[in-house]
Amino acid sequence: MGLVVQKYGGSSVADAERIKRVAERIVATRKAGSDVVVVVSAMGDTTDELLDLAGQVAPVPPGRELDMLLTAGERISMALLAMAIHSLGYEARSFTGSQAGVLTTARHGAARIIDVTPGRIQGAVDEGAIAIVAGFQGVAQDTKDITTLGRGGSDTTAVALAAALKADVCEIYTDVDGVYTADPRIVKNAKKLETVVYEEMLELAACGAKILHLRSVEYARRYDIPIHVRSSYSNKPGTIVAGSMEDPSVEQAIISGVAHDRSEAKITVVGVPDQPGIAASILRTVADADINIDMVVQNISAAATARTDISFTLPKADGPAAMAALQKVQPTIGFDRLIFDEHIGKVSVVGAGMRSHPGVIASFCEALAKVGVNIEIISTSEIRISAVCRDTDLDAAVRAVHEAFELGTDEEATVYAGSGR
Amino acid sequence: MGLVVQKYGGSSVADAERIKRVAERIVATRKAGSDVVVVVSAMGDTTDELLDLAGQVAPVPPGRELDMLLTAGERISMALLAMAIHSLGYEARSFTGSQAGVLTTARHGAARIIDVTPGRIQGAVDEGAIAIVAGFQGVAQDTKDITTLGRGGSDTTAVALAAALKADVCEIYTDVDGVYTADPRIVKNAKKLETVVYEEMLELAACGAKILHLRSVEYARRYDIPIHVRSSYSNKPGTIVAGSMEDPSVEQAIISGVAHDRSEAKITVVGVPDQPGIAASILRTVADADINIDMVVQNISAAATARTDISFTLPKADGPAAMAALQKVQPTIGFDRLIFDEHIGKVSVVGAGMRSHPGVIASFCEALAKVGVNIEIISTSEIRISAVCRDTDLDAAVRAVHEAFELGTDEEATVYAGSGR
Repeated sequence: MGLVVQKYGGSSVADAERIKRVAERIVATRKAGSDVVVVVSAMGDTTDELLDLAGQVAPVPPGRELDMLLTAGERISMALLAMAIHSLGYEARSFTGSQAGVLTTARHGAARIIDVTPGRIQGAVDEGAIAIVAGFQGVAQDTKDITTLGRGGSDTTAVALAAALKADVCEIYTDVDGVYTADPRIVKNAKKLETVVYEEMLELAACGAKILHLRSVEYARRYDIPIHVRSSYSNKPGTIVAGSMEDPSVEQAIISGVAHDRSEAKITVVGVPDQPGIAASILRTVADADINIDMVVQNISAAATARTDISFTLPKADGPAAMAALQKVQPTIGFDRLIFDEHIGKVSVVGAGMRSHPGVIASFCEALAKVGVNIEIISTSEIRISAVCRDTDLDAAVRAVHEAFELGTDEEATVYAGSGR
Repeated sequence: MGLVVQKYGGSSVADAERIKRVAERIVATRKAGSDVVVVVSAMGDTTDELLDLAGQVAPVPPGRELDMLLTAGERISMALLAMAIHSLGYEARSFTGSQAGVLTTARHGAARIIDVTPGRIQGAVDEGAIAIVAGFQGVAQDTKDITTLGRGGSDTTAVALAAALKADVCEIYTDVDGVYTADPRIVKNAKKLETVVYEEMLELAACGAKILHLRSVEYARRYDIPIHVRSSYSNKPGTIVAGSMEDPSVEQAIISGVAHDRSEAKITVVGVPDQPGIAASILRTVADADINIDMVVQNISAAATARTDISFTLPKADGPAAMAALQKVQPTIGFDRLIFDEHIGKVSVVGAGMRSHPGVIASFCEALAKVGVNIEIISTSEIRISAVCRDTDLDAAVRAVHEAFELGTDEEATVYAGSGR
């Protein structure tokens, strides 16, 4: 008899009816012979409603209290889910992140899991109960204060618990039925993938695929926990995220999927003195403001002036902070001016097989050129190619690349929607 | 610099505006030089909304999960209150019952506080912060499960914390400005009492005065913590509950106040064999169903039949269970029939001074007789007289007794309303 960890997002438990449906699914898994540990997010819009309340009492709520407030969300959904299971005749016990032994750093709102000590969960399972655990939350190892892991953190809770409990699989239930070759809202004939290796899923998640939280994939890879991404509305198998591209037995597609991202902006520093160390000091300035830079490009220097331009992309939300930090160092660095551009999009192709297939980058660029999409920045990793273009060109770019690498199917995909936290 | 524990009920923190007002009051206390620990209930209707959700997913939710669910209520209000204080420039940290060291029995929904180990609260206060503690909740010492203390439990949390922290006073903020000689909704000229001794407050609370939770008064008496009952809408002094009637220096009114109660019902067991032990076995039957009996009366036996009637009062909600339990033992006990009567009311007068004033019970009965109220059951303690009458006569009874003992004032009272949990 194995152990399954199941994670249900906020939309899967948005109201009493859906909670009852999820309870039935959990009981079905139990009846089929598996022990079950469930990780659950807050119901539907609860988090946003709580954030709204916070905004009404304090313009800048302290992180500790915001975490205390938001964690009420899972407390409600997990207790209701345990009740619903109970009324189906099975024992269920709910546990907060703290009770489940989810120990984190003390960074409120974006804590990282340090360790999971699931003694109480294991105890409940050993006694035959179904354990329901609050996703997204933990307790800071040092301060003992309640923390949250940031949006998407429930995926990470589920995988971390699965690792700590040595579960056979971690099932992530969402409102799509798996990982697709592209967002089916953009590409009508996108195909559901049966399997994706961890490295590919990491690149897809990092490039804007919202289906799994990046950190949860890192965790699954480190502890070798298979993730099964599937729909909470059907019984069809979804997508298995498992295995490494280093494993020779794993068959590798050249391209597994196309991801896109509208959440970034571009800053261009114009007229930078073309001297050693100047680019570094620009990037250091931004990093010191605690902002993650994604892609960077530096123009060929104009010989006459010995000046160049440096562009980089970053999360849109961090734009104002980065601009302010750079303006402060303008006198020291001596650039001409800054341009902030939030109308960019990023299209990426990911595939473990591209390592052994030269010419993928050429095909990628040709596909974009054919539909008239101009590439502003391009960057590559071993198994990924990303290009920045105008945001208005992004959908066309995704379709063109998907078509060029023949990723489509004849069946129409179910509609894709963002997953919960 | 002393320490004040302040408790705010659900109506005092019903929305963002009220939370901000409460935050200002707390900060004002802090500015005046006191350390402050605050106990807060869930916002307004939160508890009822959560109960409604529970009813939607499970007809009979398990107590453990119901407690997990309901404790989300204080989590929300306490975090919001801490944020509101923070935005006024003061440090505030919220703590769950468990974090505050409120250790209880494991009886879900009606747990009793066993001990309070307020290390984290004391630590926060020592660091200059205002500590906000969730009322109504704790953690079971044995199972480590989250528990609730039952309705009104936040008062008990506040007094228990005040005792553990050796606070100077426990201020209970509510929507009335003190303890009155009678419910001002019934008696227009009811007078606010400046002081009440613990024993009187216990009797008043036990007889239907909803202003303080009975257990909180027991706690205050045991640890000699003065309670200041006052309005969260004004700065006027309220009523101090302190001191014992055994203390010769405390001045004792013959009658301090009139309480009333509409929450009880009466069961009459008709035609009981008048033999030793029969009354006991009837009362034991009810007690074994975990039901508290209040008043009992046994008629004089009718000599011809050697049979008698026994009546007792109990909480209305327990009526069906008591009737069912008694019906089961009818063959063994051999009574004729049961009468369930939920149309009763109870009026009580309480006063430490009545011990040394004979004739109070006569005046009480005369007052009721004068307005044509029939007494169905009467019972007394050392400092209390209670009478059961028709519920339709109850208001008239309260007014008549209040008038007879000249408890009124010329000023009109502020309107009384039930307090939160």
